[in-house]
Amino acid sequence: MDSAMTASYVHGYSEYETRRLADQANTLAELLHGGTAFPAGTRALEVGCGVGAQTAHLVAASPGAHLVAMDVSDRSLALARARLAAHVPAANVEWCRADLFDPPFADAAFDHLFVCFVLEHLPDPGRALAGLRRVLRPGGTITVIEGDHGSAIFHPDSGYARAAIGCLVRLQSDAGGNALIGRRLQPLLAGAGYVEVRVHPRTVYADRTRPALVDGFTRNTFTAMIESVRDDALAAGLTTRTDWDRGIADLHRTTADDGTFHYTFFKVLAVNPPAAG
Amino acid sequence: MDSAMTASYVHGYSEYETRRLADQANTLAELLHGGTAFPAGTRALEVGCGVGAQTAHLVAASPGAHLVAMDVSDRSLALARARLAAHVPAANVEWCRADLFDPPFADAAFDHLFVCFVLEHLPDPGRALAGLRRVLRPGGTITVIEGDHGSAIFHPDSGYARAAIGCLVRLQSDAGGNALIGRRLQPLLAGAGYVEVRVHPRTVYADRTRPALVDGFTRNTFTAMIESVRDDALAAGLTTRTDWDRGIADLHRTTADDGTFHYTFFKVLAVNPPAAG
Repeated sequence: MDSAMTASYVHGYSEYETRRLADQANTLAELLHGGTAFPAGTRALEVGCGVGAQTAHLVAASPGAHLVAMDVSDRSLALARARLAAHVPAANVEWCRADLFDPPFADAAFDHLFVCFVLEHLPDPGRALAGLRRVLRPGGTITVIEGDHGSAIFHPDSGYARAAIGCLVRLQSDAGGNALIGRRLQPLLAGAGYVEVRVHPRTVYADRTRPALVDGFTRNTFTAMIESVRDDALAAGLTTRTDWDRGIADLHRTTADDGTFHYTFFKVLAVNPPAAG
Repeated sequence: MDSAMTASYVHGYSEYETRRLADQANTLAELLHGGTAFPAGTRALEVGCGVGAQTAHLVAASPGAHLVAMDVSDRSLALARARLAAHVPAANVEWCRADLFDPPFADAAFDHLFVCFVLEHLPDPGRALAGLRRVLRPGGTITVIEGDHGSAIFHPDSGYARAAIGCLVRLQSDAGGNALIGRRLQPLLAGAGYVEVRVHPRTVYADRTRPALVDGFTRNTFTAMIESVRDDALAAGLTTRTDWDRGIADLHRTTADDGTFHYTFFKVLAVNPPAAG
């Protein structure tokens, strides 16, 4: 994510962050990836694979497809490669270091594109989507998955917790990204020239009756993600130590026996227009 | 809703409101009622049936059940009765005017309770739920459906639109209700003594690819509901004419070709504890 056109990656590259992304991917795998499988013999490109958290699930669901996983960060690619070697040793993945604004592939090289938690970090996601159409064959599909932090609602409600979430939204915006991008995906993809753009909300709801989601999503994914921007939020003067700590405590409070947490991911399937007859 | 324990009904009783509730029920019927059917021979009580918008769907899904529809408003019951006579003439519904805090039925008179868009208007929904257990047999089920206006996110985003929604939330709160109750249902039902409380989010997502939802939900249900509190919001000094008009215009703006709208309903199924052995 070091392209001049690419925002700095708001979540950072720490070991803690790598673990957080892996927790997130495992807990949410079925919710996010259910229905995504690339047929045997097809070529698929994962754009912005990061540390490979989603790559492992893609490979598991599409063992016969040829998957190319691309990222701009050498370090992320190394972690992704190690992750796949450890968890899916038989996986046949081709790794590629490249900027998503300049993918080093022939025109129409792929049957499928997969873009997950990437557009939210780009200053011009519409341009990225339009440019990626070049390497997707006419009639090929693109799958996009993004969150939208505006969808986070919880009990007990807390203005401090909402303000802490707002700090991440603001930092991501200042870095050129958009943590509220989920709601925008339909017009973004349509505007980039894709057709048959269908958005499928994937809603996470956690309460005491779903302890794996309370732990894996509310605590170890969402709240951990907010906690990870503490120093940046303080340095930017977006909050005070007291307000921040109260906000984080109130997010953790939603994991108690009478707490609840709701969040919506947006999954989109769209098609590159077939060539004119 | 004229009990001393019951908040005044924030949406009012106008003809416009009656039409709005019917639009809402038809558009959302499958989303909200899918999976709800009472077996033949069982007795079910609809608590707070209002103008019968949901009653028609209950009857259609459970033709062999004996349904009692209860409301505190004579006028609503008359409208509900007329509605059922027009749309489901063969329906076998028993109508009952009563306060939900004092249901005129024997202990354990029902196998199922159904409570939809009612708790949001009560100052003490937990007490209502606990009291209703008396007329539900041990082992019987309760189905609860409520919205949560905090889940409304849309594109283009607009602070004016959010402020207009906030006016309704505030008015409903001032009237003793809670327009953000969806997120609270799990602890409410558990606290009222129900067991096996399972919450199922039902997410509405509307964009140009789903024109029936853009029209039926974004425009004619949600935005119409916000518009209906205009005079009260102005009278209470919660907004100005200019800001209000801008907020409503921005809500309508989300129905344009590049607009999107997201809202989550919370549907809960729970059980009255079986009698101790």
